[in-house]
Amino acid sequence: MKFSTNYTLQQIIDIIGHEGTYSNCDPNFIVTGINEIHRVEPGDLTFVDHPKYYNKALASAATTVIINKEVEVPIGKALIISDDPFRDYVSIVKYFKPFISSESAISPSAEIGEGTIVEPFVFIGHNVKIGKNCILMANCTIHADTIIGDNVIINSGTVIGGEAFYFKRRPEKYDKLEGCGRVIIEDNVEIGSCCTVDRGVSGDTIVGWGTKLDNHIQVGHDTVIGRNCLISSQVGIAGVVTLEDDVILWGQVGVQKDLVIGKGAIVLGQSGVAKTLEGNKTYFGSPVREAVDKMKELAWIKRLPELFEKIK
Amino acid sequence: MKFSTNYTLQQIIDIIGHEGTYSNCDPNFIVTGINEIHRVEPGDLTFVDHPKYYNKALASAATTVIINKEVEVPIGKALIISDDPFRDYVSIVKYFKPFISSESAISPSAEIGEGTIVEPFVFIGHNVKIGKNCILMANCTIHADTIIGDNVIINSGTVIGGEAFYFKRRPEKYDKLEGCGRVIIEDNVEIGSCCTVDRGVSGDTIVGWGTKLDNHIQVGHDTVIGRNCLISSQVGIAGVVTLEDDVILWGQVGVQKDLVIGKGAIVLGQSGVAKTLEGNKTYFGSPVREAVDKMKELAWIKRLPELFEKIK
Amino acid sequence: MKFSTNYTLQQIIDIIGHEGTYSNCDPNFIVTGINEIHRVEPGDLTFVDHPKYYNKALASAATTVIINKEVEVPIGKALIISDDPFRDYVSIVKYFKPFISSESAISPSAEIGEGTIVEPFVFIGHNVKIGKNCILMANCTIHADTIIGDNVIINSGTVIGGEAFYFKRRPEKYDKLEGCGRVIIEDNVEIGSCCTVDRGVSGDTIVGWGTKLDNHIQVGHDTVIGRNCLISSQVGIAGVVTLEDDVILWGQVGVQKDLVIGKGAIVLGQSGVAKTLEGNKTYFGSPVREAVDKMKELAWIKRLPELFEKIK
Repeated sequence: MKFSTNYTLQQIIDIIGHEGTYSNCDPNFIVTGINEIHRVEPGDLTFVDHPKYYNKALASAATTVIINKEVEVPIGKALIISDDPFRDYVSIVKYFKPFISSESAISPSAEIGEGTIVEPFVFIGHNVKIGKNCILMANCTIHADTIIGDNVIINSGTVIGGEAFYFKRRPEKYDKLEGCGRVIIEDNVEIGSCCTVDRGVSGDTIVGWGTKLDNHIQVGHDTVIGRNCLISSQVGIAGVVTLEDDVILWGQVGVQKDLVIGKGAIVLGQSGVAKTLEGNKTYFGSPVREAVDKMKELAWIKRLPELFEKIK
Repeated sequence: MKFSTNYTLQQIIDIIGHEGTYSNCDPNFIVTGINEIHRVEPGDLTFVDHPKYYNKALASAATTVIINKEVEVPIGKALIISDDPFRDYVSIVKYFKPFISSESAISPSAEIGEGTIVEPFVFIGHNVKIGKNCILMANCTIHADTIIGDNVIINSGTVIGGEAFYFKRRPEKYDKLEGCGRVIIEDNVEIGSCCTVDRGVSGDTIVGWGTKLDNHIQVGHDTVIGRNCLISSQVGIAGVVTLEDDVILWGQVGVQKDLVIGKGAIVLGQSGVAKTLEGNKTYFGSPVREAVDKMKELAWIKRLPELFEKIK
Repeated sequence: MKFSTNYTLQQIIDIIGHEGTYSNCDPNFIVTGINEIHRVEPGDLTFVDHPKYYNKALASAATTVIINKEVEVPIGKALIISDDPFRDYVSIVKYFKPFISSESAISPSAEIGEGTIVEPFVFIGHNVKIGKNCILMANCTIHADTIIGDNVIINSGTVIGGEAFYFKRRPEKYDKLEGCGRVIIEDNVEIGSCCTVDRGVSGDTIVGWGTKLDNHIQVGHDTVIGRNCLISSQVGIAGVVTLEDDVILWGQVGVQKDLVIGKGAIVLGQSGVAKTLEGNKTYFGSPVREAVDKMKELAWIKRLPELFEKIK
């Protein structure tokens, strides 16, 4: 991306505005654009934060580089030294990027914080509140009453605050039981593409601080997910579940309704959780057992032919 | 939501238009808006249908309450007595809500019934027919030729009438076999977020009267789902499957192509159905067995160490 | 669809432009529109490629039929003989269909090839390159830097180039590891509805020539899928996986990161792949084994009651 006008190195550092970031180069050095390493041109700023790529970045066409080490400044270039080059790069991108697409549909009653980016075809319903520096990617949907904190990323195709799956069987049909719950997404949560987080029925559905969701994940109504959980692709969590902090669920795990997974528990891929699990243990299987027991069981099963042989 | 002008209690009852609904309060009592219980203001109408919340609703800021019990009218308020307060509340919301978003994309050949709500970024293809009082939520997609009955809800991110996954292996590549089938969604069906119902190849793909689908569900081409089925999140149903009436599939069940699941069958979570199942039984496992047999099998497996011990 | 003006048979054959396609009827025969078999009117062109439907097509209201057999021409009609009627029909549809919806959001830096159709609410990010004769269906999302070949179909709700799920645990939180990879979709690939293909972190995520994906499929960052693979609904493939050519994964299979599935391998439904698999074999189970061994194992397990009986 080329800027619409030239900026000086000092102006860029002011935009970053973070005290761990400085430069010992000419503050009037000119920056004309910003780009990722594989598509930079002279005048561009880029960043590098891994020693493996230092040389590549310093030798690239980019003339300004944000880097997390004090190295010799290449001739004709400028360096910005930072403890977190990526963070600073993102700050600059956000500064120059248009924040809210005119092709989104946002309720007048919604509130959106500073620095938040809303891409095209994002729908934001009534009374939604979104914090600062969030990214809502194209084609995601945020239904009414949802509350989203700061620094939250919602990828494309994801639906937050959809209807609860909560029906009562009548003789002739199912009746929907309606509620008045919301979805609350706390700060620093990241949610992948094509996920669904249903609104609460009796209370709120909550995704806790710093938790990361991969793609295709289902979070049912009134489920409460703690801080810093890591949930892999295609996991399905039913309604009224509690995940305590630091829980890790690997891909395609299924969790039944109305149970608790304790702090720090790890559930391996494709497992089926049908009862409350203690924290700080590793589980596997459908239905789930402690992984060490399940592994033993699988070993026993493999020895079945030997057993039948003995009996014979 | 505040109305653009004030309404009288009688006008509201006329909008509801349901004979089980009446009030013994002043018909000229003023209603200025409508809202859910947790965000009402004086002048607002709200509803309550569970004894647990009666007091909360009656004591709230709302001055008109739809309720399913004859209770004492709080001073300065009005009550509407109804056998189904939620139904009536929805009627009012629909009356005041704009029906079809100008930010949707609807083919001129599509037909949309009265009272149907189409939210932003909904795509409706050629020759689609949609009945009365449906809700098509933001970012859902209804492809060409689909037929949708009355009172159907399609949540966000869902794709109805996508292409069948139907290929023929040739020496050098797969060829797609095209067909001319449609999707038919009968009355009172509700489909969650991020579901896919593929169009038929040789016939139609059908979702029967009153059936409820949770989120992330796959329904393959030419599959026919009966009346009042309940299908939980992340279930995958291949092509050319028949689900008879009243079938329940729990989360993450997989159903292979070209088979029948009998009326009233229940398949527990994560099961894999690879053959036709008789109705009115409960199944579990991958591959699936009758749940009672599968449970016994799991018990036997747990006793394997004991068995090896005995043999030794 | 009626054309805005009448066309002659010869003009239609010129539009098809394929040497295997010809007619022995009057080149000035009039064609006024095009439609599928179940909705044709006089003047319309339709196609038929299966003997089962020859009679139906020839006797339909359509007055021009593309057919893959030399049959007697019905009175008052014209035939176009073709080795692939469907291919020719699609050529005509594409010629007349508007190519790029004005309701899409396309970055000015994106490049889109001739004959490619972009439906409403499609988002195409910066530096995306899309080849010829592709179809991008409503509500799909193509993120920045993605490269798509010719004749590719992306169904609705699908997200290409979403963020990688790639985090590093720090004492207090997860940090995202950023990369500069892209997604590359080769020629003749078809991707179903509600799929996600994440962008690469260290390299590119690749879907190889002619590969077909059903709905709800997850493809993780830096994963490389070979040519002519067939992947069924709800399969989840983690990051940094290699699928060699001609691999078939049935529904709901899960594949862990950092492994290889060999050429021609078949993995049956709901299996969990946790280690590298040799090609040209069939696998089943979670964790996966060769299918023949797994089947034997299941048979042994069924005989457990008998075994316990004997011991007793």
